[in-house]
Amino acid sequence: MKTNFSTRLLLLALVLFVQLSFTHNSYAQFTAKNEIKIPDIPGYVTLKCDFHIHTVFSDGSVWPNVRPEEAWREGIDAFALTDHIEHTPHEQDIRENRNRSYEIASPRARELDLVIIKGAEITRDMPPGHFNALFLQEVNALDTEKWQDAIKAAIDQKAFLFWNHPGWKGQQPDGISIWYPEHTELLEKGWLHGIEIVNDGEYYPLAHKWALEKKLTMLGNSDVHSPVSMRYDLSNGQHRIITLVFAKEKSTEAIKDALFNQHTAIYWENKLIGEEKYLKPIFNRSIEIINPDVTITGKGRANIQIHNNSQIDFELIANGTSDEISFPSKITLYADKTVLLKISAKSETLTGTKKIGLPYKVENLLVAPQQGLSIELPINVNFIPADPE
Amino acid sequence: MKTNFSTRLLLLALVLFVQLSFTHNSYAQFTAKNEIKIPDIPGYVTLKCDFHIHTVFSDGSVWPNVRPEEAWREGIDAFALTDHIEHTPHEQDIRENRNRSYEIASPRARELDLVIIKGAEITRDMPPGHFNALFLQEVNALDTEKWQDAIKAAIDQKAFLFWNHPGWKGQQPDGISIWYPEHTELLEKGWLHGIEIVNDGEYYPLAHKWALEKKLTMLGNSDVHSPVSMRYDLSNGQHRIITLVFAKEKSTEAIKDALFNQHTAIYWENKLIGEEKYLKPIFNRSIEIINPDVTITGKGRANIQIHNNSQIDFELIANGTSDEISFPSKITLYADKTVLLKISAKSETLTGTKKIGLPYKVENLLVAPQQGLSIELPINVNFIPADPE
Amino acid sequence: MKTNFSTRLLLLALVLFVQLSFTHNSYAQFTAKNEIKIPDIPGYVTLKCDFHIHTVFSDGSVWPNVRPEEAWREGIDAFALTDHIEHTPHEQDIRENRNRSYEIASPRARELDLVIIKGAEITRDMPPGHFNALFLQEVNALDTEKWQDAIKAAIDQKAFLFWNHPGWKGQQPDGISIWYPEHTELLEKGWLHGIEIVNDGEYYPLAHKWALEKKLTMLGNSDVHSPVSMRYDLSNGQHRIITLVFAKEKSTEAIKDALFNQHTAIYWENKLIGEEKYLKPIFNRSIEIINPDVTITGKGRANIQIHNNSQIDFELIANGTSDEISFPSKITLYADKTVLLKISAKSETLTGTKKIGLPYKVENLLVAPQQGLSIELPINVNFIPADPE
Amino acid sequence: MKTNFSTRLLLLALVLFVQLSFTHNSYAQFTAKNEIKIPDIPGYVTLKCDFHIHTVFSDGSVWPNVRPEEAWREGIDAFALTDHIEHTPHEQDIRENRNRSYEIASPRARELDLVIIKGAEITRDMPPGHFNALFLQEVNALDTEKWQDAIKAAIDQKAFLFWNHPGWKGQQPDGISIWYPEHTELLEKGWLHGIEIVNDGEYYPLAHKWALEKKLTMLGNSDVHSPVSMRYDLSNGQHRIITLVFAKEKSTEAIKDALFNQHTAIYWENKLIGEEKYLKPIFNRSIEIINPDVTITGKGRANIQIHNNSQIDFELIANGTSDEISFPSKITLYADKTVLLKISAKSETLTGTKKIGLPYKVENLLVAPQQGLSIELPINVNFIPADPE
Repeated sequence: MKTNFSTRLLLLALVLFVQLSFTHNSYAQFTAKNEIKIPDIPGYVTLKCDFHIHTVFSDGSVWPNVRPEEAWREGIDAFALTDHIEHTPHEQDIRENRNRSYEIASPRARELDLVIIKGAEITRDMPPGHFNALFLQEVNALDTEKWQDAIKAAIDQKAFLFWNHPGWKGQQPDGISIWYPEHTELLEKGWLHGIEIVNDGEYYPLAHKWALEKKLTMLGNSDVHSPVSMRYDLSNGQHRIITLVFAKEKSTEAIKDALFNQHTAIYWENKLIGEEKYLKPIFNRSIEIINPDVTITGKGRANIQIHNNSQIDFELIANGTSDEISFPSKITLYADKTVLLKISAKSETLTGTKKIGLPYKVENLLVAPQQGLSIELPINVNFIPADPE
Repeated sequence: MKTNFSTRLLLLALVLFVQLSFTHNSYAQFTAKNEIKIPDIPGYVTLKCDFHIHTVFSDGSVWPNVRPEEAWREGIDAFALTDHIEHTPHEQDIRENRNRSYEIASPRARELDLVIIKGAEITRDMPPGHFNALFLQEVNALDTEKWQDAIKAAIDQKAFLFWNHPGWKGQQPDGISIWYPEHTELLEKGWLHGIEIVNDGEYYPLAHKWALEKKLTMLGNSDVHSPVSMRYDLSNGQHRIITLVFAKEKSTEAIKDALFNQHTAIYWENKLIGEEKYLKPIFNRSIEIINPDVTITGKGRANIQIHNNSQIDFELIANGTSDEISFPSKITLYADKTVLLKISAKSETLTGTKKIGLPYKVENLLVAPQQGLSIELPINVNFIPADPE
Repeated sequence: MKTNFSTRLLLLALVLFVQLSFTHNSYAQFTAKNEIKIPDIPGYVTLKCDFHIHTVFSDGSVWPNVRPEEAWREGIDAFALTDHIEHTPHEQDIRENRNRSYEIASPRARELDLVIIKGAEITRDMPPGHFNALFLQEVNALDTEKWQDAIKAAIDQKAFLFWNHPGWKGQQPDGISIWYPEHTELLEKGWLHGIEIVNDGEYYPLAHKWALEKKLTMLGNSDVHSPVSMRYDLSNGQHRIITLVFAKEKSTEAIKDALFNQHTAIYWENKLIGEEKYLKPIFNRSIEIINPDVTITGKGRANIQIHNNSQIDFELIANGTSDEISFPSKITLYADKTVLLKISAKSETLTGTKKIGLPYKVENLLVAPQQGLSIELPINVNFIPADPE
Repeated sequence: MKTNFSTRLLLLALVLFVQLSFTHNSYAQFTAKNEIKIPDIPGYVTLKCDFHIHTVFSDGSVWPNVRPEEAWREGIDAFALTDHIEHTPHEQDIRENRNRSYEIASPRARELDLVIIKGAEITRDMPPGHFNALFLQEVNALDTEKWQDAIKAAIDQKAFLFWNHPGWKGQQPDGISIWYPEHTELLEKGWLHGIEIVNDGEYYPLAHKWALEKKLTMLGNSDVHSPVSMRYDLSNGQHRIITLVFAKEKSTEAIKDALFNQHTAIYWENKLIGEEKYLKPIFNRSIEIINPDVTITGKGRANIQIHNNSQIDFELIANGTSDEISFPSKITLYADKTVLLKISAKSETLTGTKKIGLPYKVENLLVAPQQGLSIELPINVNFIPADPE
């Protein structure tokens, strides 16, 4: 040993001093959990889920333990690892075992209180294309010659099955989703439960229509192969594609139950896609009208302050008129902010207090392709006639 | 086929419309290269390098092809993959072959015009601790029982060898770097060429001192195991630890030559660590005094505008005085900005044009532990005596 | 008129098309209100206030109507305009009337539901220095020759009086706060009610001590002269200095009452300064321990997830030990995030469920100069002895 | 005096310690100059100018000295203060003198080496609407009853005159620009020299057309009334509307000369508007093709790295085809980044080195309404036929 005690102390002080001077403010982003601010709806928790994720065990580029770490930081509640069955380009280096990604990721997922689901991607030519099977017990059983057998093997394990990226250019000419007889066959057998409406950055309007017509569960997933943080600018507010699951509780069973009952919506960029029965309560619970009771004198005006506690900017377009009140044709209720809605009386002879619902469409809450959610903003206006002069 | 031509056209239009509405402005961060703005020095290019990186082939968590992709986006010119020889926790799933991470990553590295170096981390108990060997041909040859044999195997391949994280708490009590007789032995044999002064977020002041005394090449490396973007907030301007190599050109041979000749410095947070002969030209080439010639009347003042074209905020503290001029005791020359340096005459009787060098220390350009680089800001002041009234 | 109807329509379409393509996402920052996320405390609302603001009517550089607009966007509830009485450098251009800044700003303040307070800055040499008087009726009455008369004129209007920036270098040598006999005189007369502990970017530790000893109301104010957005980087999370007022409601009277009763704290950078009785409930209402009940087997570990719903990063340093549990010596509870607190059992023979309070100091909640708030994080650990093998 | 020397020293130490712990990293944004990165063109410097700005001396909300401070920080080279002649709502409080805003702002402008231009806004009903007059000597002379006299007074002072916001909804029904006989009269007299194509956030495509047809100087100005930092999110990269002036040097005379000779373009959001002779050299000097010489074997591919040193993201759409090479139909050359342009050979039998110009339109460099600039990216491809097997 070359250093005596006092030198050692001095060095320790120096080292400590240097270490204390580190500051990693923005490091919080990486090591802490960022909640996804979309509210629960009456009777259900709104779980943020991603049911389409790859690892090095198929053609992904991360070790499985990265996936729970990412999910936790991004505020994801549940995720499925769904490596390809039939596409394993790393097999020169990685020993074949389709259960391993789930096994490796599970301990960290549990430590972080995440629901992890064992899944796989059945990866076949079109038709029928690619399908994810969730809630599997033994993935290797799906490695069959015929695609029908692979799907049957999943169904035998009581899996939830959904059609992946139905408009993917790799399998559909011009990127238009085509529904083949094979899909009708699967649907009629009760083997097709859901369909991806959004995959990675792509939205499939036809699939959206089919989901509504055929009562298929709508899914939106990341299909991420690389580290998530190489694909999305998480620090600047981007988020991966997420399936919102409206479940009785945060558990594998409750999620399975919700998926089989179409209790889902999709969170994609600044949009939600889903049925009105889900999007309306999300909107209502996100919005607070700070001062719903206002007084207007004559043809004067008033400012309604509206707060949005969600992380979605709601883009509202007027969807009708009011006899008494003029209101903006367009307003954005910014995420986590309070905005001013300026209204004015249409006539100076109005009198008394009136309940008025200001009619708007929320352009980025999609209840069908290109169709926004209709809502009303309820206010109470006390009209005081202008003084005659 | 269920759709006729006109429907198909309509759908195509719909799909295209939806796709055109995507905007991913901040996505640039991820798919484009961000230059590291530190200038070349006379006679040399300043290469940005990382010589300590892991993959799934030892205890890292990414597939090797992620490493060139990250490096290119971050503006790195050259990197070494240095998986542990003796620590391969993924061996249940990954077939053993210590050359594979280099082989897998090389094609993408070449496509992106990056220099990729075959390396390995000799991973032994202290003493002597961990060592990186760069420029290897056959990594498996380093898998020996005795550490001496491993190092000899590297030397036999003409490798460049450096001691990793010499103050790492995992191997040094209290995190104080201790120099053992084994290190003396290696040094005397000519087998120890460099030493990490900074590893991941840690700076080792004692190692800094040793490097200066013993003429060891200074290195600063990321030692990254996870995806880089999970460890650094790249979108907000954080960067991995980098070794700057002052080389004749961007090539493996030129880098090797530079490393064996101590032509390096370290870029860590907002600091550079290195010898004055490197840090001074970097500072001088980063700074432009926009208006070096100013006129001061009587005891008046003048504003010197100074532009910094590098990405380092230079933190200057006055390091002496001037007989004629008062100048700020402290000023930061912000990266990529122009700041005002306010000066004033000390006496109202000064006359004539004087060349003045304003003496400062650059606190975050470290030529030795806690010792900033001394510089002078050269200006020419034309003093005009105040009018007598 | 040069255009026919159809051309007109075409042009309208062109104009509309161009206008629709505008996107000003980040514009939200400027036109919307950003709440300051610091919770109410039991029995009181936590009002965010700034009691020291200038306009062009003294030496400020904005028209008075800018001040309510800024305040609303920044989430301020109440503010006072306090132009200098004795320092009006714009008088060549602006007609003298010390009530005008309040009169001009008031209509917009009311429209935005802000409390606006009529004030003024009595601006004298040291001693006694500068004093703000709040809740005035007629500011011109304070324009007297002797400072004693100015203060008396304020007291006659039942004003709240506080000493501004008591350690300002412009009036105190070396920037050290000095308490003069004049201040004792004011205090003994009951004419001095409060003192600024923080002004603009400066903190006065001696004033902090005096406030505690002499029961003076603590204030922290911006003293802003320029546009606030030229002084603080609001888009990147900076905020002006704010006095938190714990009031029965958001009204002028309730604020006045709170000020006279020392119901205040100060929000400065990432710090709060105030008495324990205010800072403790703010901390407790900001923090949620997501999983307070954990199980540890043997010498195993558990992860406590802690959410912080405020906008302050709480910086915790261990302040004692536990017999049963090891816990981190340092942890930051990041604003609006959930972090992991990793604990482990000290012995493998522990058994049964124990209530444990993990003792910490919150370094950036200052109950006295350099003294952080002491808190305990309550958890319940169910210890299960390790299986003997 | 209550403190002895050693206490004083202790306090000083405490105060200093506290002050040293301040960190205002992002403060750089506010107190430093941010260059606008748009290159000079051959023979001219590219000056960044704003010729339409208000202060409290008409209906603006800042004192004139704020304007040079803002301009400097934002990288503006020259600006005009153009308070309304006929609209002075603050006159109850501000003494009337239309030269004062220029006089007050000038000293600070000169200190910061900015060109400041004395101007005014002639503010009349439509027709003819609002006009800015630049390079005035005596603004009060423009305060006439008839608009013709006001314009003549400006012309008598050799002013440069331009029509402001010709499609402003406040004066043009539906926001469509209408050209009145009065404008023809002004044009024929040689009294109308320029026209705003962009004002604040609005673009007037008709005015753009007129400017091209009638050889009017194109201007784009902020028309800012509030603090600039309340209107634009400067910290997040937004910028005010700017007129680029291509001048022989940075001086009042050179700017005047350039304006009278239509040497301008407009920088608005991420767009430039101007004649091809200006936009083409700006594009060419912004772009560097890092590796123009590439080799392709057979039907292989190559990556062209293209660096953009300007602060504009150039949005390129293919504008033709090449017989030999396939290239992307769309690519964005991100500001301050290097992107990959992936090309591939159309046939495997190509041989020899070919000079190829990849044809693109730059969608956001507008040479006419909705018409992007045509450019070619020059590369040299060395084709090597594929080996027959």
